[in-house]
Amino acid sequence: MGMTMTQKILAAHAGLDSVEAGQLIEADLDLVLGNDITSPVAIKEMEKMKVEGVFDKDKIALVPDHFVPNKDIKSAEHCKCVREFAYRNEITNYFEVGEMGIEHALLPEKGLTVAGDVVIGADSHTCTYGALGAFSTGVGSTDMAAGMATGKAWFKVPAAIRFHLIGKPSKWVSGKDVILHIIGMIGVDGALYKSMEFVGDGIQNLTMDDRFTIANMAIEAGGKNGIFPVDDLAIAYMKEHSKKAYTIYEADEDAVYDEEYTIDLSTLRPTIAFPHLPENTKTIDEITEDIKIDQVVIGSCTNGRIDDMRIAAKVLKGNHVAKGMRCIVIPATQAIYMQAMEEGLLKIFIEAGAIVSTPTCGPCLGGYMGILAEGERCVSTTNRNFVGRMGHVNSEIYLASPAVAAASAIAGKISAPC
Amino acid sequence: MGMTMTQKILAAHAGLDSVEAGQLIEADLDLVLGNDITSPVAIKEMEKMKVEGVFDKDKIALVPDHFVPNKDIKSAEHCKCVREFAYRNEITNYFEVGEMGIEHALLPEKGLTVAGDVVIGADSHTCTYGALGAFSTGVGSTDMAAGMATGKAWFKVPAAIRFHLIGKPSKWVSGKDVILHIIGMIGVDGALYKSMEFVGDGIQNLTMDDRFTIANMAIEAGGKNGIFPVDDLAIAYMKEHSKKAYTIYEADEDAVYDEEYTIDLSTLRPTIAFPHLPENTKTIDEITEDIKIDQVVIGSCTNGRIDDMRIAAKVLKGNHVAKGMRCIVIPATQAIYMQAMEEGLLKIFIEAGAIVSTPTCGPCLGGYMGILAEGERCVSTTNRNFVGRMGHVNSEIYLASPAVAAASAIAGKISAPC
Repeated sequence: MGMTMTQKILAAHAGLDSVEAGQLIEADLDLVLGNDITSPVAIKEMEKMKVEGVFDKDKIALVPDHFVPNKDIKSAEHCKCVREFAYRNEITNYFEVGEMGIEHALLPEKGLTVAGDVVIGADSHTCTYGALGAFSTGVGSTDMAAGMATGKAWFKVPAAIRFHLIGKPSKWVSGKDVILHIIGMIGVDGALYKSMEFVGDGIQNLTMDDRFTIANMAIEAGGKNGIFPVDDLAIAYMKEHSKKAYTIYEADEDAVYDEEYTIDLSTLRPTIAFPHLPENTKTIDEITEDIKIDQVVIGSCTNGRIDDMRIAAKVLKGNHVAKGMRCIVIPATQAIYMQAMEEGLLKIFIEAGAIVSTPTCGPCLGGYMGILAEGERCVSTTNRNFVGRMGHVNSEIYLASPAVAAASAIAGKISAPC
Repeated sequence: MGMTMTQKILAAHAGLDSVEAGQLIEADLDLVLGNDITSPVAIKEMEKMKVEGVFDKDKIALVPDHFVPNKDIKSAEHCKCVREFAYRNEITNYFEVGEMGIEHALLPEKGLTVAGDVVIGADSHTCTYGALGAFSTGVGSTDMAAGMATGKAWFKVPAAIRFHLIGKPSKWVSGKDVILHIIGMIGVDGALYKSMEFVGDGIQNLTMDDRFTIANMAIEAGGKNGIFPVDDLAIAYMKEHSKKAYTIYEADEDAVYDEEYTIDLSTLRPTIAFPHLPENTKTIDEITEDIKIDQVVIGSCTNGRIDDMRIAAKVLKGNHVAKGMRCIVIPATQAIYMQAMEEGLLKIFIEAGAIVSTPTCGPCLGGYMGILAEGERCVSTTNRNFVGRMGHVNSEIYLASPAVAAASAIAGKISAPC
C-alpha cells in the first residue's frame, strides 16, 4: 500500500521501509522546539526524569516569544529558567531578546527547518513548517522533554486528507483566506489527527508566506500536520535561508486518503472567521450588517511575515485608521521588522495611525500589547478566536487576512479592501 | 518680599499681587492631566461628587500610556473607562493608541503646555514641564477630579532652592547626570515640597531635552516642581510646537531661597544611581568593581526623547550588545519613534541587537516590556530604582543616562562610553 508524503517522512525517520495509518512508531527528530511557556515545564520534566544533558545541542531551538520582552515577573522567571538551561547545555539555537521573533516565523527564517525534517515543538502551531515539506507537529511539554533528552518521539502514523488546490486567487485573496475557507468547510475537527496534504497546480500561485499561513492553521482543523510538496519556490527559500541538507519526499501514486477535496482558488473570496471558532466563516460578501470594531491586530505566527506587512501597508498607504481604532502591527521577527522598515512599511503604518510593536506573540493568546476589555471587538490576523483568548470573556475576535484587517482598521468595521 | 519664579506664576493664577511660601491659595489651571492608571480613579471621584461635565474640554489631557497598548484585562478596562469619559465629555486632547506617547514627552511635543502655565497632572513626573518655564506638579486622583470639574486647585505656595548652573558639561554628560548629581547631593527629600529653580549661564549649554530630564526628576528630590528660566531655546521650542500664548515670569531679584547651590557642569561626570534610591549616586569613576547586568532600558518620560535616542545610537553604532543582554529601546512618542526611524537610529538599535518597543511607560514602573526576574540587574534611563519597581523584589535597577546605558549594554556591565 502506498504512503502519503507525511508517512514517507515518518517511515524514513523510523528506519522502516513503510508505515501505515494508525501504526505506532518511534522516529528520530531533526529539531525539538520550545518557547517561554512550554520549555520551563519540559525542563522541570527532565529534572524529574533525572536526565542530564540533551541529545544534540544543535537540534534544539528555544525561542522565548510568547510573553517576551518579559511581561511580568512570572514570565521573567520562565525566561530565566529557559536561558539558564540553554547556557548550561550550550544550546546553539537559543534566541535572546534582540535576536528573537515568533518561533514559527523565526525557525524557517534561520534555516533550522527544511524539507524532509521531522520536527516536534511544544506549541500547537509547530505544524507551520509543513510549508517547506517537513513533517512538523505540536506536542506537550513532556514529549518535548523526552525529545530533548533522546532525540526521538513516538507517533501514531496519521491518516490523511488531500486538498487539490487549483486556479489562481484573485486580488486580496491570500493564504489566510484559503485556510479559513477550508476550516469553514471541514470544521475545527475536520482533520482530527490527520495530515492535511496540499497538492495541485494552484500551489504555484501561493507565495511561501501564503503556504506558511496555511500550514500554520492546519491545527485549527484538528490536523496533526499540514504539508506542501517541495517545488522550486520552496527550494529557493531553503537555499536562501538554510545550510541544512534537505530531502524531498513525494507521496506514492497509490497513497490512501480518507477524503479528497478540490478547491478552486479563483473562486475564493476574502473570508472571516466569526466568534468563537475558526470554522464560523463567512465571506466578505455574506456579511450584510455593519460589524463595528475597536481594534485590529496584524501579526502572529500566522500572519506576521513580510508579505503580510506588505499587503497591510498597501491597504493602509495614504489612508488613516478610523477614529478610536487601535491598530497594532507586530512584525514576527527582527529581520521582518528591519525589512519592513527598510521598505518604508513601518512609516506607512505609523502615518496611518497604527503602532508597531517589537516582535512578540503578544495579544494573540491574551499575553499583552492589545488585550480586549468587555464588549470590545477585534479583527485579527491571528489563528484562534476562542472565548476570551484576547482578553475579557465578553470580547470578540474576528479572524481575517492582513488585507481585510487593514481595510477594517480604516473603515472602523469589518470591510474588504477595494 | 520678592517672589520666586514659581511664586510669581502661582500669584498670577490666584489673582493675587503676591504670595509667600506656606500660603494656601486657589489657582486657575491651564491644564489637567491624567493617564490610564490615575484617570479612572478621578472619573469615579467625579461620579461620587455627582459632577457632570468638565470645566473646559480643551484644558484636559487624557493620555493612556502606562499599560498601553493594553497589557491585560484590567488595563483594558481602565482604558475603556478613560476613552468613554473622553468621548462623553468631548475632551479635545484624548490620545488613542497610535496618537499617543508617554504623557510627559507628548504634552510639550503637542504644544499643550507652555511657559507661565499652571499644570496639574495625576502623575508624579508632571513636574517635567518646568523645563518650559511652567509651574507643573503631580497631584492625586482626587485633586485631578476636582481640577477637571472646576479648573482650579489648592496649593500651599512652595519655598524654593536655587541651583546656579555654570560651565559646560563635557562629552557624554547630559541632563540625567546633572539631576542625578543633584539628587545625590541633596537626597531624595532634599527639596521636599520646594521649588527647584535652576538659573545660571550653564543652562545655555543644556538642550531642551536635557532640561526636560532635569525638571522631570525634581520629584525624585522631593521637589514640588522644577523650573527653568525661559530663554531663546525654550521660546524656539514653544514656537515650533505650540500655538498657545505663553507668559514669561522671572524671579524677583530679592526672592528668598531656603538654600542655594552652585554646580559647575564642567566638573560633572557620568553618574549612576545605585539600588534602591535615586540618591545613591556614584560617578562612573567611583565604580571600581564589575557590575554585571542582564538588561538595559532606554526610554521613559525621563529619557525617551529624540536627543536620548541620538545619544544611545551614537554609542551603539557599529557595536553589538553583550551576549545575553536584553537591550530595550522605547521612543517616548510616535513622533520620536518616526523621527528616530527617519534618522536611521532604529536601524542602528536593531543592528546592535537591541529591540525597539512602541511608545509606552512599560517596564519603568513594572508594567511590561522588560520585567526583571529574581536576581537580575538592569541599567535604566528611567527615574526610580525603588525595591521591586521593575519586577522581582530581589532585582536591581541602576539609573543612568542613555550614554551610560548604551555603553553598559555593549559591555555587559556598568560602563561609560569612550
